[in-house]
Amino acid sequence: MLKPIGDRLVIELVQSEEKTASGIVLPDSAKEKPQEGKVVAVGTGRVLDSGERVALEVTEGDSIIFSKYAGTEVKFEGKEYLILKEADVLAVVSK
Amino acid sequence: MLKPIGDRLVIELVQSEEKTASGIVLPDSAKEKPQEGKVVAVGTGRVLDSGERVALEVTEGDSIIFSKYAGTEVKFEGKEYLILKEADVLAVVSK
Amino acid sequence: MLKPIGDRLVIELVQSEEKTASGIVLPDSAKEKPQEGKVVAVGTGRVLDSGERVALEVTEGDSIIFSKYAGTEVKFEGKEYLILKEADVLAVVSK
Amino acid sequence: MLKPIGDRLVIELVQSEEKTASGIVLPDSAKEKPQEGKVVAVGTGRVLDSGERVALEVTEGDSIIFSKYAGTEVKFEGKEYLILKEADVLAVVSK
Amino acid sequence: MLKPIGDRLVIELVQSEEKTASGIVLPDSAKEKPQEGKVVAVGTGRVLDSGERVALEVTEGDSIIFSKYAGTEVKFEGKEYLILKEADVLAVVSK
Amino acid sequence: MLKPIGDRLVIELVQSEEKTASGIVLPDSAKEKPQEGKVVAVGTGRVLDSGERVALEVTEGDSIIFSKYAGTEVKFEGKEYLILKEADVLAVVSK
Amino acid sequence: MLKPIGDRLVIELVQSEEKTASGIVLPDSAKEKPQEGKVVAVGTGRVLDSGERVALEVTEGDSIIFSKYAGTEVKFEGKEYLILKEADVLAVVSK
Repeated sequence: MLKPIGDRLVIELVQSEEKTASGIVLPDSAKEKPQEGKVVAVGTGRVLDSGERVALEVTEGDSIIFSKYAGTEVKFEGKEYLILKEADVLAVVSK
Repeated sequence: MLKPIGDRLVIELVQSEEKTASGIVLPDSAKEKPQEGKVVAVGTGRVLDSGERVALEVTEGDSIIFSKYAGTEVKFEGKEYLILKEADVLAVVSK
Repeated sequence: MLKPIGDRLVIELVQSEEKTASGIVLPDSAKEKPQEGKVVAVGTGRVLDSGERVALEVTEGDSIIFSKYAGTEVKFEGKEYLILKEADVLAVVSK
Repeated sequence: MLKPIGDRLVIELVQSEEKTASGIVLPDSAKEKPQEGKVVAVGTGRVLDSGERVALEVTEGDSIIFSKYAGTEVKFEGKEYLILKEADVLAVVSK
Repeated sequence: MLKPIGDRLVIELVQSEEKTASGIVLPDSAKEKPQEGKVVAVGTGRVLDSGERVALEVTEGDSIIFSKYAGTEVKFEGKEYLILKEADVLAVVSK
Repeated sequence: MLKPIGDRLVIELVQSEEKTASGIVLPDSAKEKPQEGKVVAVGTGRVLDSGERVALEVTEGDSIIFSKYAGTEVKFEGKEYLILKEADVLAVVSK
Repeated sequence: MLKPIGDRLVIELVQSEEKTASGIVLPDSAKEKPQEGKVVAVGTGRVLDSGERVALEVTEGDSIIFSKYAGTEVKFEGKEYLILKEADVLAVVSK
């Protein structure tokens, strides 16, 4: 198990629909495109100057969208994960 | 539904009137031009060092103007949205 | 109506006297020249880490001078405005 | 009258003695040279995170020396002023 | 013994599996790859503006993954260590 | 008299021994070399976010060493001074 | 005696073993190598926003390792010292 530190979270990537069958990304705009992921673990939160620890807003199981170039890839027990800071999370998706 | 994190908000873009029929933007000044959008969701606000969470000033349904190059485009259930930080919002428009 | 967010304010530009009849700016020094404007709306102020909101020093109707390249131009109901942060305001002019 | 905002002050420039009769500056060192001015108005001070407003150390009538390239020139009712932040003031001169 | 200062920790490197027999790193992605290490000593934590000292989340004996280019190599009594700041630790690994 | 503002201090330079008779500096290392000075006036100190003012550690009459390129030269009543921030002071010298 | 200011400390350099007899440094890695020193004086510590002064973790007599390019060389009464900020100290060495 990966237990992220502070305000970090571990996610599994969710395939984006904008790739073609051959895997080529088809950008239709110069603006940054976010990616989607599923939260598998969250840290204990960051510590404020007052000493208070702020829990993350996202929780295990959440589907999130995040900044495309954010995070660090981690391979753990044969699976690929991404470790992000909560500040890189844009929104939680509820369908 | 998209639930933005922290001091972020989700908006739908409102068409700017400065585009020509063919979609070409006609700038009449070197200064940055803002864009208009309609707020469809707001985050829970940012957390101060005192531990207090500050609610956003903008609310769902507000028409806002914001810095042109701010935010991240998100396509969700076939519709285009933009996710901004409240700091990129310039003003609320009331007609 | 434009309701600026946080420590922002909306101003109408006041014509500077340093332009010639044909509108050409005549700089007489390498130093930055400020511009003059009239405040038409002010935000609710910025929030301190203590949670306290600090009202702006400038109020509606004030004549101000501000850093020349500051702010964002906004066209609203046929009129041009500029949205500034209070930090870009240099002084209030009282004649 | 010019009422500076926050931790700003308005000064009148005092002629530096290092200019020649023809107005050419004669630098004798690569180090930055400060300038002298007389304070004509001070702001209400900056607001701390605790909510407290800190009055400026300089007061109206003080002769000050300040960083040469600091501030913004303002022409007001036919006279030239400079608007500085107190952080650009190096020392108060008492003769 | 090495006693790290503040929010630093001392780790022993754990061999990454992505090197070939000859030691060549085989990157399969442009994204940054983290490394794995074992914590051998932790500092007393950083001091908040409130005066409170925040203990590190990682403890002696933890297996951690961290940003690849973070830290400073230290050779001590014939062994190689790496001294990191806790902010460079991504996650604790529990198998 | 020069009364420095905030956490500034006024010093008189003490001649460094590393200049040759002709005034050429003879550096014997690529590392930055500090200079020595005598404190002739100190400011009232900087104001913390809590509102408290922190007195300077150095006092009038102290011999100090400071970062070589720090400070602003001031000529006052025919004498050369240097105005520094206390953060540029490395140590007080007591012989 | 040198009394360092704030969170600074004065150290004597300890010869690194990685120099050859002729004084040439033999790097075996692209990573930054730290240096070793002995603490001869410590400052009174830095002042927090709360007004509290935080004593240094290192004390006189400690052997420390620090970032190679940190600090300022000082020659005092014929001996060479280095003045560092505590933030540049990586660890205390206890043998």
